[in-house]
Amino acid sequence: MTINRVAIIGLGLLGGSIGLALRERAPGIATTGFDADPNVRAVATDRDLVGTVCETPGEAVAEADLVILCVPVGAMGDAARAFADALPEGAIVSDVGSSKRHVAEALAEALPGHTIIPAHPVAGTEQSGPEAGFATLFANRWCILTPPADAEEDKVEVLANFWRGLGARIEIMDAEHHDLVLAVTSHIPHLIAYTIVGTASDLEDVTRSEVIKYSAGGFRDFTRIAASDPVMWRDVFLSNKTAVLEMLGRFTEDLTALQRAIRSGDGDTLHDLFDRTRAIRRSIIEEGQDDERPDFGREDHI
Amino acid sequence: MTINRVAIIGLGLLGGSIGLALRERAPGIATTGFDADPNVRAVATDRDLVGTVCETPGEAVAEADLVILCVPVGAMGDAARAFADALPEGAIVSDVGSSKRHVAEALAEALPGHTIIPAHPVAGTEQSGPEAGFATLFANRWCILTPPADAEEDKVEVLANFWRGLGARIEIMDAEHHDLVLAVTSHIPHLIAYTIVGTASDLEDVTRSEVIKYSAGGFRDFTRIAASDPVMWRDVFLSNKTAVLEMLGRFTEDLTALQRAIRSGDGDTLHDLFDRTRAIRRSIIEEGQDDERPDFGREDHI
Repeated sequence: MTINRVAIIGLGLLGGSIGLALRERAPGIATTGFDADPNVRAVATDRDLVGTVCETPGEAVAEADLVILCVPVGAMGDAARAFADALPEGAIVSDVGSSKRHVAEALAEALPGHTIIPAHPVAGTEQSGPEAGFATLFANRWCILTPPADAEEDKVEVLANFWRGLGARIEIMDAEHHDLVLAVTSHIPHLIAYTIVGTASDLEDVTRSEVIKYSAGGFRDFTRIAASDPVMWRDVFLSNKTAVLEMLGRFTEDLTALQRAIRSGDGDTLHDLFDRTRAIRRSIIEEGQDDERPDFGREDHI
Repeated sequence: MTINRVAIIGLGLLGGSIGLALRERAPGIATTGFDADPNVRAVATDRDLVGTVCETPGEAVAEADLVILCVPVGAMGDAARAFADALPEGAIVSDVGSSKRHVAEALAEALPGHTIIPAHPVAGTEQSGPEAGFATLFANRWCILTPPADAEEDKVEVLANFWRGLGARIEIMDAEHHDLVLAVTSHIPHLIAYTIVGTASDLEDVTRSEVIKYSAGGFRDFTRIAASDPVMWRDVFLSNKTAVLEMLGRFTEDLTALQRAIRSGDGDTLHDLFDRTRAIRRSIIEEGQDDERPDFGREDHI
């Protein structure tokens, strides 16, 4: 099986980036796209995010070998049902959602009898919408496939090669493990960032203007994450509840231990942890997952 | 009073950056420097961080108009006592520490009768040591002065102009308010980042390698902060205990509310917060305190 025609459902940051990456790296593949929002379709047309922007999801998938759902996790089921009748029999259906167990269930229910291989490219920025995508979003990023136990191996390999073609590196794991790993590397960091930015903006004794002025002390990094798409993240937390609550429990225990160390003046406990966490940063840079320059190379240290 | 000779005690990221910024922006000012670590003094000499690297703190301050302590907050008292006998009578003594009430007390005790005007340039990177400094670290950053109630106004203005000369913007407030503001904009973000990076590296069900691979989902931003100097940060938490514990209490309350919203499937509460936090990000960019490009302009979205 070869991928000749790809349909992208949802033309925001992820969907748009897939379209742009395909145009740059695999110009032989024909692309169609659909978005429920007519304004998004208009921008997608202007930016040439896909070859043909369609007016209905059925039209977009009608001749596709591969359909990729790029909508918020909570909207996957409805989005799939909207094109179910038009979906070619042999097509692979995949997605880019940040939680996988819930998506696998929603798609299996919406598209019985079809080949569903959920996927999650671990890539993104704080920006969203059809203006935000760019062709190199997936370069050197990991894309995790979570095929169901009965998935056909050759179709999994076709999807893996598709993502390799966009510059990604592939890992395969089951959906449950994915949801646990991403809870700690992505979901909890986002939840914490949203929380502290909210806490800071609600203070009576410290003004909003002070929070903004002195954000270079650390806070501004959190605001980047806390500027991410609200609907996408609401859905992630609701659809990965079990793993998020489990990891949140561990985080809270660890934070409570540090709180006790501060209260009792136990500098050794603080220093030991602070020393240990540097090693993780070094490994992330060695693995090519971040920029080694100070402040990520923020321009001119503005 | 004019500043003609500046002594920098402690030649790490901050001290080194002050020296380099002075060389670039105020070449008429003579600089001396001292660091307790002979290896740091050697690098400081190689990098020309100051005009003269001295072998004792007394030698460094002997003719200074302005002495700036750039050592961890917990070491301020001892560092000041080490040059107390050599300090010229009219000199201004200042610092760059991240908590101010504790520093003000420690310096007042160590240097009775001298002019002490604590300061905190809200600038830094995750790197530390004499190799880490650069001349533009303070450009467009805020520097907060926390003069004691009885400080001479003209000396405060001299110090303010000194920092303006390095590119900083000046704000004046009392030490207690500083410590509260910085607890939320800097200290709590660091504590949270250290905690989650520690939590992630202690998991049994998720390997260290998985945490590193999939860090692009959000976690990697936290690791940058959690790579900051361990001694400096241990001292910050111990010296700003009251404000840190107060702000930590508020953060924990807010996090618990979100935890409850996730458990009960209350998407509206989540969405409302996630929507609200974007505004803070926009203000930080408008104020010039961060880069507006996605991912802070991380190069090539590596």
